[in-house]
Amino acid sequence: MVDMVETEVECCKIISKDIKDAIVLEGSPELGLIGNILGWLLVEELKMEEIGYIDSKYFPPLAVLYKGKAIHPFRIYGTEGIVLFLSDFIIPPNVSYDMTNAIVDWMERNNSKEIITFNSIVVREKTQGVAGAANSDESLERLGKLDLPILPFGNITGLSGTLLTKSMQKGIPGSCLFAEVLSPYPDPRAAAEVIKVLNKMLGTDVNPEPLIKEAEEIEARLQELAQTVQGESESPAYM
Amino acid sequence: MVDMVETEVECCKIISKDIKDAIVLEGSPELGLIGNILGWLLVEELKMEEIGYIDSKYFPPLAVLYKGKAIHPFRIYGTEGIVLFLSDFIIPPNVSYDMTNAIVDWMERNNSKEIITFNSIVVREKTQGVAGAANSDESLERLGKLDLPILPFGNITGLSGTLLTKSMQKGIPGSCLFAEVLSPYPDPRAAAEVIKVLNKMLGTDVNPEPLIKEAEEIEARLQELAQTVQGESESPAYM
Amino acid sequence: MVDMVETEVECCKIISKDIKDAIVLEGSPELGLIGNILGWLLVEELKMEEIGYIDSKYFPPLAVLYKGKAIHPFRIYGTEGIVLFLSDFIIPPNVSYDMTNAIVDWMERNNSKEIITFNSIVVREKTQGVAGAANSDESLERLGKLDLPILPFGNITGLSGTLLTKSMQKGIPGSCLFAEVLSPYPDPRAAAEVIKVLNKMLGTDVNPEPLIKEAEEIEARLQELAQTVQGESESPAYM
Amino acid sequence: MVDMVETEVECCKIISKDIKDAIVLEGSPELGLIGNILGWLLVEELKMEEIGYIDSKYFPPLAVLYKGKAIHPFRIYGTEGIVLFLSDFIIPPNVSYDMTNAIVDWMERNNSKEIITFNSIVVREKTQGVAGAANSDESLERLGKLDLPILPFGNITGLSGTLLTKSMQKGIPGSCLFAEVLSPYPDPRAAAEVIKVLNKMLGTDVNPEPLIKEAEEIEARLQELAQTVQGESESPAYM
Amino acid sequence: MVDMVETEVECCKIISKDIKDAIVLEGSPELGLIGNILGWLLVEELKMEEIGYIDSKYFPPLAVLYKGKAIHPFRIYGTEGIVLFLSDFIIPPNVSYDMTNAIVDWMERNNSKEIITFNSIVVREKTQGVAGAANSDESLERLGKLDLPILPFGNITGLSGTLLTKSMQKGIPGSCLFAEVLSPYPDPRAAAEVIKVLNKMLGTDVNPEPLIKEAEEIEARLQELAQTVQGESESPAYM
Repeated sequence: MVDMVETEVECCKIISKDIKDAIVLEGSPELGLIGNILGWLLVEELKMEEIGYIDSKYFPPLAVLYKGKAIHPFRIYGTEGIVLFLSDFIIPPNVSYDMTNAIVDWMERNNSKEIITFNSIVVREKTQGVAGAANSDESLERLGKLDLPILPFGNITGLSGTLLTKSMQKGIPGSCLFAEVLSPYPDPRAAAEVIKVLNKMLGTDVNPEPLIKEAEEIEARLQELAQTVQGESESPAYM
Repeated sequence: MVDMVETEVECCKIISKDIKDAIVLEGSPELGLIGNILGWLLVEELKMEEIGYIDSKYFPPLAVLYKGKAIHPFRIYGTEGIVLFLSDFIIPPNVSYDMTNAIVDWMERNNSKEIITFNSIVVREKTQGVAGAANSDESLERLGKLDLPILPFGNITGLSGTLLTKSMQKGIPGSCLFAEVLSPYPDPRAAAEVIKVLNKMLGTDVNPEPLIKEAEEIEARLQELAQTVQGESESPAYM
Repeated sequence: MVDMVETEVECCKIISKDIKDAIVLEGSPELGLIGNILGWLLVEELKMEEIGYIDSKYFPPLAVLYKGKAIHPFRIYGTEGIVLFLSDFIIPPNVSYDMTNAIVDWMERNNSKEIITFNSIVVREKTQGVAGAANSDESLERLGKLDLPILPFGNITGLSGTLLTKSMQKGIPGSCLFAEVLSPYPDPRAAAEVIKVLNKMLGTDVNPEPLIKEAEEIEARLQELAQTVQGESESPAYM
Repeated sequence: MVDMVETEVECCKIISKDIKDAIVLEGSPELGLIGNILGWLLVEELKMEEIGYIDSKYFPPLAVLYKGKAIHPFRIYGTEGIVLFLSDFIIPPNVSYDMTNAIVDWMERNNSKEIITFNSIVVREKTQGVAGAANSDESLERLGKLDLPILPFGNITGLSGTLLTKSMQKGIPGSCLFAEVLSPYPDPRAAAEVIKVLNKMLGTDVNPEPLIKEAEEIEARLQELAQTVQGESESPAYM
Repeated sequence: MVDMVETEVECCKIISKDIKDAIVLEGSPELGLIGNILGWLLVEELKMEEIGYIDSKYFPPLAVLYKGKAIHPFRIYGTEGIVLFLSDFIIPPNVSYDMTNAIVDWMERNNSKEIITFNSIVVREKTQGVAGAANSDESLERLGKLDLPILPFGNITGLSGTLLTKSMQKGIPGSCLFAEVLSPYPDPRAAAEVIKVLNKMLGTDVNPEPLIKEAEEIEARLQELAQTVQGESESPAYM
């Protein structure tokens, strides 16, 4: 592989090709797995190339299978003007600080234009689908122009939070898109809503349909399961 | 930003502008979240400017939203003659020692006049509202002149305790204001009582009314919840 | 012992003779203990010689008895063209990263041809017996030629996962064979199925019969136990 | 403060004035809090001066209030010929080793005459009140001359144990006084018994009466509580 | 004390006189406390002298009382031709590795002839009393000549396991004697059985009678307790 550069920050190391002047997306799994689910879709739909990975001795011992091939559990993908940091496991809290620094260092060296992270808010009932927050007044204004409701108060946990404050300190604009979710379980339908907003921000035309199909399949299985359980509880129990 | 100075003490780092000869307040969340609640009010009412933050790889990965903008979870605010260290998370005990040293170093370099910390005592029934303690005879006398009851014995846990002993060793006067609370839950009404005492100590005129409104809203919601629960327990239960 | 070489990588150390140009097998105990069970069989049937061991202060304090002799709990065995890393305990996750590096370093220095690791998938009902995955298109093709079903998606946990991604980065082909198991308990019958596939890959003729006998003995004991328990539950209970 | 010396041993640091040729007492809270309770009494009755403190980043974040003043949770007191190491929290086990070394180093440099530590034995019924043990034949003989029963076998946990063995290695005589206690709760009456023995060893005349009053108050409160509970359990219960 | 040598290996340190060409016994408490119980007997019966101790900051803070005198919890005893490493607490697993190295280093420097460790196997019914295992064919043969049944397979946990493999790597012969025990509780009767075998190996004539008396006392107390409990369960219960 050509032009592989190592950015080592304490306990974690980025081994990756450089892509200059890109918008950076971060998709590590928070509540609802939003970032991870939409990250996999972007890789497929935008035909993004794997350009590197993040390595750390504090990661859980793990490989991920993709079409039968074992791949690194935290990969970096790139295509024209877009870079995606995609993790398939929950980042251990004790790695978050150094990983944030490593990613922001990478963005500084690559003159990245901005960072977009993903998170979720648990609601009793879905209303607006997606809300936004940012790390500067300029970024907030831009979200406003997209008619995106702004989340005024609250916490942003995990990498998606620390990346916003650290990139702000380096003068890199950052936004976070929050999907409304009803539970902590994977929610591809909520991720599909985020894709629609993201298309406007990136100028892409990613079809969220695969995520909606995935959601329907999950919902059908849950429906079946519910009927089975109901059926079982109605039948006499021998024990 | 101009004149940004780094004070690194082992595992935590203060990145902040200097403000000389100020009174320093510390508002990290102990029981009742007193320091945090009144800290946010002071920032608003005294129009304090964010002058820096404390960073540590041992902090939980977290950003805080303020009017839609992601801000650092431990910030330093300043205005004429007053500096506030304001944290939105509970300081991990293994960071307290180094953070105490970092803050006291900052105070020494800035010739800070004194430090005021906040804590709480859990009581069965609120009586005097606020009690005080200090780190020297001079500071105790001063509290006495405010007609503040003195808490003779007990423990001061967390940063508010270690800051008092460490600043005493450096010859910096320190006091702690204890709010009476009935439970470990956020208690804006108790924080309002502390604001009244603090106004006398700082010579400010901060209106505690917003905290009392906040308290009334919380109490109303709890009242509603209690009625709902009672209603539910009276209705027949199908299960 | 002649030509003993130490490969120390941070917290773990390989002390072993070199064997050049070999196929490397890794048999640490995952679900069903597949790799460990078949590893012991290979040592017996292929009359493999103990050529070294892996040492780490993070291993549990443990020796293993083999025919009355205390041996190291993580040993390395070799024979013409085949090397086996065989562990009798579950590798602590905090050692996995360094151990993976140490093993891949050893393989690079010894110009090892490929690595084969073992894992398992818990199923409700056994169907195909064994499935495969690999770390490169070439290795996948080769598994396909063996008519082995490919596991398209999922996770490979433990050493068997990290060895595949790390060896891929060094250009060493790697495969993982997954046994179907019904539970996390030792499953020699499942390991026997893997032996049949492994024979094709290694060009060996190891007889899996001992594992099938072992399985029958376990199953007979469980059968007996089940009858005893049933008998007990049918007899009147005094208590 | 004059002549302040720092004795730093790994993870803990003694900052203290020197007092030569003294008998050293150690009062950290073990079962029944004996050492801590009698330590506070000695400070009052012997009018001991605070001469220093022990600091460690592994201590819990804590200040202790004494007459409204925040003081260090591990302090060193001195008076003519007697030095007291007094802790208000349970020493974390991972600090005990280094703290033992730091204290014994301090004693060597100050040519301390001997060390007396305090511990307790849980009994079903109090009989002799206090028993003793020592770190040398000479110290044992001396305890015998006081008609103190000797505790032949058992364990001495905590600082009071490690101080005895470590000071023995440096040739400093050491004794441990064990109070009989009925429970792990604070037992000022048991501490009063130890004071009587200690008076003989130190040639002092400390009045244990305040501890007996404290015990009576605790016992009265428990008595009241018992009656309340009994009263409650006799009244009809609605639930 | 003359000729005290320090052998420091990472986190633990041996401070001890040298005794050349001895047989080394290791008595740390595993299941049934066999090694510890027989170690104390050997010290008494063979009038062994305390020649040193092992020190580590990772040990629990502890002293042990012996006839009223506080002694180190891990001591080394010696007599003509025999050395005993005797611990009164369970070795923390994170210290085992370094302690094993420290002890084997000590043995190499002292040209120790062999090492004998002790462990136990939990059985439903005692049959043969004692079984053996070793770290080399020569040692196994020797055990065979004693008509000792050999334990073919299984695990040796703790120091007694790691000492066997590590001494094997240094060419020092080693054996382990396993007592049959019915439970994890202290079993002096089982230790007495081991003493009989050990007498043959060491050429000593240690009388195991004290251990059998100790066992009888324990058994009598348990018997009494059983009758009391039975009596209680037969009497009417008021509660």
